[in-house]
Amino acid sequence: MAATTGLADSATSKFDSTTPPKDSQLDPSLVGQLLVNLDKEVEALKGNKEIDLEGIMTFQRAANYLSCAQIFLRSDALLQRDLTQDDIKRRLLGHWGTCPGLNFVYAHATALLAELERDGEKPEWLFVTGPGHGAPAVLSSLFLEGTWEHFYPDYPATAGGLEKFVKAFSFPGGFPSHVNAETPGAIHEGGELGYALAVSFGSVMDRPDQITVAVIGDGESETGPTAGAWHAHKYLDPKESGAVLPILHANGYKIGERTIPGTMDNYELAALYTGYGYQVRIVEYPGYHEKHKTDHEDDVTINANMAASIRWALGEIRKIQKDARSGKPQTKPRWPLIILRSPKGWSGPKELNGHPIEGSWRAHQVPLPKAATDKKEFNMLVDWLKSYKPEELFHPDADILIDEKVTRILPKAVRSRMGMNKYAYDGFEPLKTPDWRKYLKEQGTEQSNMRAIGDYLVDVVRDNPHSFRIFSPDEITSNKLDACMSITHRDFQWDPETANNGGRITEMLSEHTLQGFLQGYTLTGRHGLFPSYEAFLGIVTTMIEQYTKFIKMALETRWRRPVAGLTYIETSTLWRQEHNGYSHQNPGLICNFITLPRNLARIYFPPDANCSVSTVDHCLRSQNFINLVVGSKNPSYNFLSPASRGRSLRRRTLD
Amino acid sequence: MAATTGLADSATSKFDSTTPPKDSQLDPSLVGQLLVNLDKEVEALKGNKEIDLEGIMTFQRAANYLSCAQIFLRSDALLQRDLTQDDIKRRLLGHWGTCPGLNFVYAHATALLAELERDGEKPEWLFVTGPGHGAPAVLSSLFLEGTWEHFYPDYPATAGGLEKFVKAFSFPGGFPSHVNAETPGAIHEGGELGYALAVSFGSVMDRPDQITVAVIGDGESETGPTAGAWHAHKYLDPKESGAVLPILHANGYKIGERTIPGTMDNYELAALYTGYGYQVRIVEYPGYHEKHKTDHEDDVTINANMAASIRWALGEIRKIQKDARSGKPQTKPRWPLIILRSPKGWSGPKELNGHPIEGSWRAHQVPLPKAATDKKEFNMLVDWLKSYKPEELFHPDADILIDEKVTRILPKAVRSRMGMNKYAYDGFEPLKTPDWRKYLKEQGTEQSNMRAIGDYLVDVVRDNPHSFRIFSPDEITSNKLDACMSITHRDFQWDPETANNGGRITEMLSEHTLQGFLQGYTLTGRHGLFPSYEAFLGIVTTMIEQYTKFIKMALETRWRRPVAGLTYIETSTLWRQEHNGYSHQNPGLICNFITLPRNLARIYFPPDANCSVSTVDHCLRSQNFINLVVGSKNPSYNFLSPASRGRSLRRRTLD
Repeated sequence: MAATTGLADSATSKFDSTTPPKDSQLDPSLVGQLLVNLDKEVEALKGNKEIDLEGIMTFQRAANYLSCAQIFLRSDALLQRDLTQDDIKRRLLGHWGTCPGLNFVYAHATALLAELERDGEKPEWLFVTGPGHGAPAVLSSLFLEGTWEHFYPDYPATAGGLEKFVKAFSFPGGFPSHVNAETPGAIHEGGELGYALAVSFGSVMDRPDQITVAVIGDGESETGPTAGAWHAHKYLDPKESGAVLPILHANGYKIGERTIPGTMDNYELAALYTGYGYQVRIVEYPGYHEKHKTDHEDDVTINANMAASIRWALGEIRKIQKDARSGKPQTKPRWPLIILRSPKGWSGPKELNGHPIEGSWRAHQVPLPKAATDKKEFNMLVDWLKSYKPEELFHPDADILIDEKVTRILPKAVRSRMGMNKYAYDGFEPLKTPDWRKYLKEQGTEQSNMRAIGDYLVDVVRDNPHSFRIFSPDEITSNKLDACMSITHRDFQWDPETANNGGRITEMLSEHTLQGFLQGYTLTGRHGLFPSYEAFLGIVTTMIEQYTKFIKMALETRWRRPVAGLTYIETSTLWRQEHNGYSHQNPGLICNFITLPRNLARIYFPPDANCSVSTVDHCLRSQNFINLVVGSKNPSYNFLSPASRGRSLRRRTLD
Repeated sequence: MAATTGLADSATSKFDSTTPPKDSQLDPSLVGQLLVNLDKEVEALKGNKEIDLEGIMTFQRAANYLSCAQIFLRSDALLQRDLTQDDIKRRLLGHWGTCPGLNFVYAHATALLAELERDGEKPEWLFVTGPGHGAPAVLSSLFLEGTWEHFYPDYPATAGGLEKFVKAFSFPGGFPSHVNAETPGAIHEGGELGYALAVSFGSVMDRPDQITVAVIGDGESETGPTAGAWHAHKYLDPKESGAVLPILHANGYKIGERTIPGTMDNYELAALYTGYGYQVRIVEYPGYHEKHKTDHEDDVTINANMAASIRWALGEIRKIQKDARSGKPQTKPRWPLIILRSPKGWSGPKELNGHPIEGSWRAHQVPLPKAATDKKEFNMLVDWLKSYKPEELFHPDADILIDEKVTRILPKAVRSRMGMNKYAYDGFEPLKTPDWRKYLKEQGTEQSNMRAIGDYLVDVVRDNPHSFRIFSPDEITSNKLDACMSITHRDFQWDPETANNGGRITEMLSEHTLQGFLQGYTLTGRHGLFPSYEAFLGIVTTMIEQYTKFIKMALETRWRRPVAGLTYIETSTLWRQEHNGYSHQNPGLICNFITLPRNLARIYFPPDANCSVSTVDHCLRSQNFINLVVGSKNPSYNFLSPASRGRSLRRRTLD
């Protein structure tokens, strides 16, 4: 073999072409059989006056303007005087590339909410943002819909409030470039990619009317945790739970390279997600790869497509739910999935120095990065901002800042708007827990800590049929909690023997997906327990750490109320390892817990079964804490009597 | 909504049915279009004398016998006297359920190796075992093929050696129930599931003639890391690299529940893996779900199917390679994938107390767990062992222990047998490194540590075109190593602009997959570098810890030679975090490194660019070590002169 080390002109020079490869060597005639086709509906929608496409597109225009303004401007947010380079932030943050797609989805979802409201419904939807550094988009939509003002009265929907809002993005003392606990409606810490989808599924469990719109970036979709979480719908019982509407935002590029979905043709995407169990509908910018340009007519077409597609998706969700709730559950219900193929940085600058920006990796972060110092880039930025015609959208001198053309698509009631969903921030119902003392055994009794915990959990499961779940990657029986099986069951929907039975136990062999479920379930006001082999719980170390960041910031955010604690029980520990040997030994997570903030994370080493019950009871009733309980499966003696525990140990150290 | 908490008789009582759901609401006529059909070849093979199906099945029979014996027997391994309950191990370990499938695959792969050998080739294949606790199978095959005796002369292929071998499995002082560094041919630590596939892909990079057979259990396939790693082939250049033959072993059950692949019908599996980019061929036990029984005729059919399928797979691999190597690379080559749907615990006990064992979750761990104390189970065990007719397979009193009917499928040369592949254990070629001193700048020069490292790496890449790779989840440019782009490029095969160009840089946004690549690449004698944002490197904490276990045991295994060190460079650290904020801050991995064995793991905090170059050079030339280098992207001053570093610091602490 000859040497094959490749040579390239520069880091990125070969990446200007925007056409992905086509040849997948598969029969393209199959495409139509795997993809949901809505062509007629799309055409009909363009002339349908009941769907306010113009309003939806105007909302997008305003949100895109604000996204761009947040990234670039520290003053003159509404271009009320001639913009100068002094108005530009010195450190440009936030990623523009994903913003137009996020704004596009948000506008369509919120317009549909308004329609449902007009039909007399009280929809409660959540929006989960997967793409990294996409906060400019979400913040813009929240500002436009009035949510921002509601939670942050210091930032009213006035010219002054908007000026302050635009400046505060990624500015000292302001708001970060990722969605975090300070973002209204948010239930997911940005930063580490991979978990938005699983968190979304957790958020709708046991909330039959809840829908969470989850936008998954094509970068995030390359992660293992996301790739596994596409199976999450297989653990969602449509009778008792709501639905996730996943939108894979495949705009094709990461910072400097194409993404995997970006190089997959529609057939490959349809095959993959059909295999995952979804019905797939692709919302694609018409002919973008051929023309590499956007125009108003095509903007209308893709908006009509999305309007038709999101209605189709809601219809499919309701069909599945109706069947399940009328006693005729579908076998393997195929939930809808939308794949959005829109140009990266859509509506932004088209090219710079002969290189394309829109629709390429160059739009991923901040296009025109030298706008503050380079005159050409500055002028392009001014043209870009003006292209949204902000003077039509915002009226700084009028009583109402935001034009009615922008806001008319919103639900009339502010509380019906997407960022206002109270599940995202308004606390939780306390868990109904039995008196832990009744499970204690006499001093000297030989008992398995885990079995004792299991006896206690039976009553917790029974008394909280819709607000307590157990997420168990290593299987509940293996962790000696099988007493719970006397009162409930697994919830695997694709197994006819566990489908549609309201099971409280999820046993997917994916720590990542289950951790996401637990986070989404807890952050929307419910309670969960995560038993796991000690060695394998470390798989979600950084997820736990990111979750802790969310809680830390939530505690610093005035309008967020407490959530239930997260409780982990480690079994098969290094110190009493039974039989699995070296490959299954790893107490390392304890090291990571020790470094978490001491007001948030606790580690418990209950010495016997009595103490284990008392500890788990305490943890399940805790608020905000992340609790790590070190368990033990094999029988050992109770060192302490119920009385001694009741009197002293428990009072001093736990309650 | 009515209360839906499900009730069940017992933990598992509903799980006796062995029929998965069928209704996927998709047009089954599509199946034939997505699946590779070899029906004619299968029929032809049954009468083809050139394919030794009988020999292959006899090898399986012997391997299954030894697997069962290893799990149960501490004495009388060949049933030379009447077995008693005293002959049974007191603690039964290893998982029987997966063993017959592993032995099935091993037998077919090894028979194909022999065929290639007869054709004058010198095939070098590796076998990677995904399924947990599957060591009884792999150890059995290694014993039968003579590899075990080669590496462990204390366990010769004699009656005494076999007796000792059977007893040593999961016995104090013996061998663990997972594949680990003590297993000949192994390049992957068992225990934590999810990484076998990515490791396999790493093992074949830059080894154009290498094929790694990777068996992935359907439990493991539920993990996120595995779900993401199915895309790994998109980073494999068929011109310069070998191939992975992935075999998804979908036997349907975990410990107590069906698996996700176990509930997917063939069409869903075909769609999913077609979407991932593979050509899919399903090797299924004929009509097992209907009949729930196995017999000789069907055994022959599935063996003929596998023989045809593995030959088809090899043919497809070679077509792709030939095209790439003759200058006509295929666009998006569709590598072959085999899905094996065989009964769990195939050939084991059929039922116990009215419950099915074979083909159900009850076969997952140890069927007949009370064989040492319960007479009925003991008798069933005796029948089970005798059903393999060990007297036909082993001749304890003869010169040659193992019958020729078992061994005749093996390659003639012992060194051609699968467990003997020298890449798995025989050390590495040292990296060609330039003199690090020539990259140093004068004291006081302002320089980015990462850029200085990048300048050094340019020469490393150039001088090691086939044995050094950079795995970079957060993109090389973002980590300021883009100088490397002057000499090489990314290797993303599904992007026409980076396909087939020998790129040394892999930029998949999956830390798990890249860590697997790095492990497989390093453990087969090559060198890699893993730059990552500090906060996100923690995603693979437990993978690093499992890898360290492998190295620790490799150092204690006489016949294993050293491998190159693994080197991580953390950027965007908490302490000099630039701009990404709280969501991107997490130095926690350092805690985990501190707890690793001090003879294996090192953490480096080079204070300036000069020291960074010196440190990375040292790490890349290290043996066995796992090195964590804390980097820095922004320019800072060189505190130490080249001279001072050359004289003292370097000598005392590094070399």
